[in-house]
Amino acid sequence: MTNETIRILGVDPGLRNTGWGIIEASRGSRLSFVACGSLHSDGDAALAERLAQLQRGLAEIITAHSPHEAAVEETFVNRDPQSALKLGLARGVALAAPALAGLEVAEYAANLVKKTVVGNGHAEKAQVAMMVRVLLPASRAESADAADALAVAICHAQHRASRAAARLLQARA
Amino acid sequence: MTNETIRILGVDPGLRNTGWGIIEASRGSRLSFVACGSLHSDGDAALAERLAQLQRGLAEIITAHSPHEAAVEETFVNRDPQSALKLGLARGVALAAPALAGLEVAEYAANLVKKTVVGNGHAEKAQVAMMVRVLLPASRAESADAADALAVAICHAQHRASRAAARLLQARA
Repeated sequence: MTNETIRILGVDPGLRNTGWGIIEASRGSRLSFVACGSLHSDGDAALAERLAQLQRGLAEIITAHSPHEAAVEETFVNRDPQSALKLGLARGVALAAPALAGLEVAEYAANLVKKTVVGNGHAEKAQVAMMVRVLLPASRAESADAADALAVAICHAQHRASRAAARLLQARA
Repeated sequence: MTNETIRILGVDPGLRNTGWGIIEASRGSRLSFVACGSLHSDGDAALAERLAQLQRGLAEIITAHSPHEAAVEETFVNRDPQSALKLGLARGVALAAPALAGLEVAEYAANLVKKTVVGNGHAEKAQVAMMVRVLLPASRAESADAADALAVAICHAQHRASRAAARLLQARA
């Protein structure tokens, strides 16, 4: 189990920009960079078409890079229900796209991602991007969304073993 | 244009239950019932898998019934951002599914659907279901979600002509 190489897709969903990043985790915690980028939806298109653009983009990335598992950042829910709804729209397709491709999809709160990658749940975006560059020297995420998506993938690499153990315990209980 | 028969998919999205209904509108306003039902996601499954179930279900309905256009009910945004986000998740896949199949997708606020079908924007669910049965005698929607979805489709049948005219004017301006 710890000798296998796992390819992970991380996604930071947003209606305008959805960041994505792919890494490989081998021997438990050795990480390497595969690819990253940012998907943009056309702001002039109808809402449904924009969501379809994001989902089509994610499906293409999954086909191109064949990740084994996916991790999606749990969107921050602010006080405004209208923007929470909008975040939900993009997150819905970001969760559905890898699940439709047969991948298991984990979710991680933004705070946990920051704590795992930077060591501080309230880290700034720039700190996250800097640590991603330290942990994945080959990555040159050209956008904050792509760096965030790589951070979610790194977070999943660290937590997936304990998630699996918890599931096993639950199944036995 | 007014002589064509248009097949419309109406969707009332929800994470647990997503209602769907298909009608035909011919000669402008003559309506006939085609099919309706409710998609359920497995409450014990992971969120991403539940969204994938809804989207797979909608894709199958679109393949089976070949609608020309789709209409989705705009979810009511209440005061709680957490439930707004949850509504957004289901609505995201409900909007993306027909768009991915190449359909144009319209959105209608719940109030407008009620006003169009019952004549009162604050009508009760039971009144909507009753009017759906009056307008589509062949329909026997077995659930409130399915009746709501048929109501959205009826609303689109009434408003699609004026939407098209507005778009034309916009394009000329």
